[in-house]
Amino acid sequence: MEQVKVLLDETEMPRQWYNVQADLPTPLAPPFHPATMEIATPEQMNVIFPMSLLEQEMSPQAYWDIPDEVMQVLALWRPTPLQRARGLEKALGTPARIYFKNESVSPAGSHKPNTAVAQAYYNKQEGIKRIATETGAGQWGSAMSLACNMFGLECTVYMVRVSYDQKPYRKSIINTWGAEIFASPSEQTNSGRAALAENPDHPGSLGLAISEAVEDAATRDDTNYALGSVLNHVCLHQTIIGEEAIRQMNKIGEKPDVVIGCIGGGSNFAGISFPYVREKIKGMDVRILAVEPASCPTVTKGLYAYDYGDTAHLAPIVLMHTLGHTFVPPGIHAGGLRYHGMSPLVSRLAEDKLVEAIAVPQLECFEAGLMFARTEGIVPAPESTHAIRGAVIEALKAKEEGKERVILFNLSGHGHFDMSAYDAYLAGQLSNYEYPQSMVDEALSKLPHVELPAM
Amino acid sequence: MEQVKVLLDETEMPRQWYNVQADLPTPLAPPFHPATMEIATPEQMNVIFPMSLLEQEMSPQAYWDIPDEVMQVLALWRPTPLQRARGLEKALGTPARIYFKNESVSPAGSHKPNTAVAQAYYNKQEGIKRIATETGAGQWGSAMSLACNMFGLECTVYMVRVSYDQKPYRKSIINTWGAEIFASPSEQTNSGRAALAENPDHPGSLGLAISEAVEDAATRDDTNYALGSVLNHVCLHQTIIGEEAIRQMNKIGEKPDVVIGCIGGGSNFAGISFPYVREKIKGMDVRILAVEPASCPTVTKGLYAYDYGDTAHLAPIVLMHTLGHTFVPPGIHAGGLRYHGMSPLVSRLAEDKLVEAIAVPQLECFEAGLMFARTEGIVPAPESTHAIRGAVIEALKAKEEGKERVILFNLSGHGHFDMSAYDAYLAGQLSNYEYPQSMVDEALSKLPHVELPAM
Repeated sequence: MEQVKVLLDETEMPRQWYNVQADLPTPLAPPFHPATMEIATPEQMNVIFPMSLLEQEMSPQAYWDIPDEVMQVLALWRPTPLQRARGLEKALGTPARIYFKNESVSPAGSHKPNTAVAQAYYNKQEGIKRIATETGAGQWGSAMSLACNMFGLECTVYMVRVSYDQKPYRKSIINTWGAEIFASPSEQTNSGRAALAENPDHPGSLGLAISEAVEDAATRDDTNYALGSVLNHVCLHQTIIGEEAIRQMNKIGEKPDVVIGCIGGGSNFAGISFPYVREKIKGMDVRILAVEPASCPTVTKGLYAYDYGDTAHLAPIVLMHTLGHTFVPPGIHAGGLRYHGMSPLVSRLAEDKLVEAIAVPQLECFEAGLMFARTEGIVPAPESTHAIRGAVIEALKAKEEGKERVILFNLSGHGHFDMSAYDAYLAGQLSNYEYPQSMVDEALSKLPHVELPAM
Repeated sequence: MEQVKVLLDETEMPRQWYNVQADLPTPLAPPFHPATMEIATPEQMNVIFPMSLLEQEMSPQAYWDIPDEVMQVLALWRPTPLQRARGLEKALGTPARIYFKNESVSPAGSHKPNTAVAQAYYNKQEGIKRIATETGAGQWGSAMSLACNMFGLECTVYMVRVSYDQKPYRKSIINTWGAEIFASPSEQTNSGRAALAENPDHPGSLGLAISEAVEDAATRDDTNYALGSVLNHVCLHQTIIGEEAIRQMNKIGEKPDVVIGCIGGGSNFAGISFPYVREKIKGMDVRILAVEPASCPTVTKGLYAYDYGDTAHLAPIVLMHTLGHTFVPPGIHAGGLRYHGMSPLVSRLAEDKLVEAIAVPQLECFEAGLMFARTEGIVPAPESTHAIRGAVIEALKAKEEGKERVILFNLSGHGHFDMSAYDAYLAGQLSNYEYPQSMVDEALSKLPHVELPAM
């Protein structure tokens, strides 16, 4: 029998997260406060985030110990398997060896709980009783409700109405873990009420849902806000994925030639790749490839500029790749990748050429996702099909060149709650959803102007 | 950190299935043919089943090698983790140690692929091109379509219409794996057309869907039928669960005092428990507990008698616990447990007191299932909540008695495609669905009369 999976025992789990800020060739530029338009202080951000997470956000410290209480919850499903995609290799007829890290095995079905559990823990430590957060397609809201439940925190999720109506089982699983969920815009906040007053049938947007959650957290002493991607501490918590992958690849004497993840806000890609960025800086010969949707090509087509994190101008202004905070991405099924900006860390690494990015159209992703489901069994989340597409591209290149190649990608989640996307694809109802360049041009004309003080 | 999971490498996977027929104190009575009312011959059954499976069905051989090709597919997710339910233990405040075998990690989300893969393989070996099967709630149809896809067989699934309409994502995942699916009754078969002629809005039933699939298989040379539970060869293929569990418990020096599974047709229970039945016969001090729904209490309230396997009298007549083949179980959400009969092997073992059975009401199962979801993270399938309820009962007894106890149960699957059941439970819309005794009395008056020849 040919080996398929590489497992780690719980005793072999990494005990520290890796902070790529420690090794950046160019340090990160500071975030600005959206109200003062000056560099944001930890004290200002402490209104909605605990100090321990802000410390992780700002610090250049290379390693952070994972608290025992966090390890204990992660051990419910971690370490996750590293799997060799032999069926996919055969279907492609490639000489490449394709490996994937299977993050779909978490109870919430994606990598998101890796940081949700840590965020719930640190908030609990600082006496917070309740978390308010937003969710688009539902992966993050599910993860945060699971994590809050594990630490006895209350949790309120504002879910973009159009997804709330399209994916009713997300609401069900969030309720099952004891959290409260509102379709956004809701009657719970000023931002929500204002939007509903303007349009009672408002479909909602991620920007608006963020505004509702931030407002909720900012106006209640017992409540903090939690974000599922983009920020440095979120990327930090996800590095357990790559640290495990390195140990697993070592176990079988393999070294990846290319490490691949999909990018929306950047967190699952950060998770699989930042430990490899460290190795690359130390001299490892490895390419690191981010795959984004062609309909929201933040890194490949956006500007590297200061921009708001949300449409309502409540989140910090950060230096990142952006299509402009007023850009509304077309309605592809990979809802988790529909974000105008990108993690400042991923953006910085792309600028420094440590990370490459490509943009791929929706139909090619579903084609690759279906091939994966039929060869490896697992039905991937629409977001994860972008990483699979990236792996297929690399595997076909290897075939063309007649060369061996070791490909490692992150399977960020399963698609059990996104099956209507597969229905639409199989029925030939999907397209690649292009957008007019004028939309991006207009959005990019609305970037904020901030001035860095002389260093 | 406290250990949560016990893993096995692929190299530690059991290489043989265990056939409990080899060790039965009382041998099984033969099946009868529903048309001739005489003992059914393998040749008669070969019309819809391959000879290799019929051999496994009839033989007293204790061990069967698992073919390499089957092992290779199973290795996509097997061996499955054995997990200690520490969170559940703490919530119950029990001195018992609770372990569960996590069969929810298969791509189809349940234990069903263990036999689906084997059945697809043996059918392929005998030149069959296509499988016809039925599915109730959808677990089996999903598993069979996954397995057929892996071996390049076509697959047609007849799904009970009421479930087809209630659980649309089951259709989606079955299509994603390339199978064809029809709501039953369908226009594809005589049985289906007859039912539709009688009632164009016919909601369907498992009995009718079986009739459609058997008719399809019997009338096409290239097509066989596949069943997901009840039969001996199905139970055989599931024993890999218990064989793995024994190895995993040995690894940590534990021995279960009680082994628990839910029963509908009996296959997941057979899987976890038959290897322990072998050990019990050899002298191990272990109780083996089957948990059935109070609204379909086949073993605890049914007769041990010869009965038809389906309502249309096409499947073999077997000696089993039955509530009568015309008994229509109330519409509990654990659709996989709504079967009038029981595996002849499980029935035989219950008669010989090697296996105990209890019946539990729906609300107590969902209560236990919710507690499990909130302590262990995994949202269990409604069927699996019955096994969890059994474990909770045993753990609370241990608490009352102030005694240690080692409990092992089978988590047969997750509930990602059954979330509407949790919605209904959380909304207080579920009841325990009792049935009038007269329904069972009437059904039991319609058992077939067969005569065993003098031995």
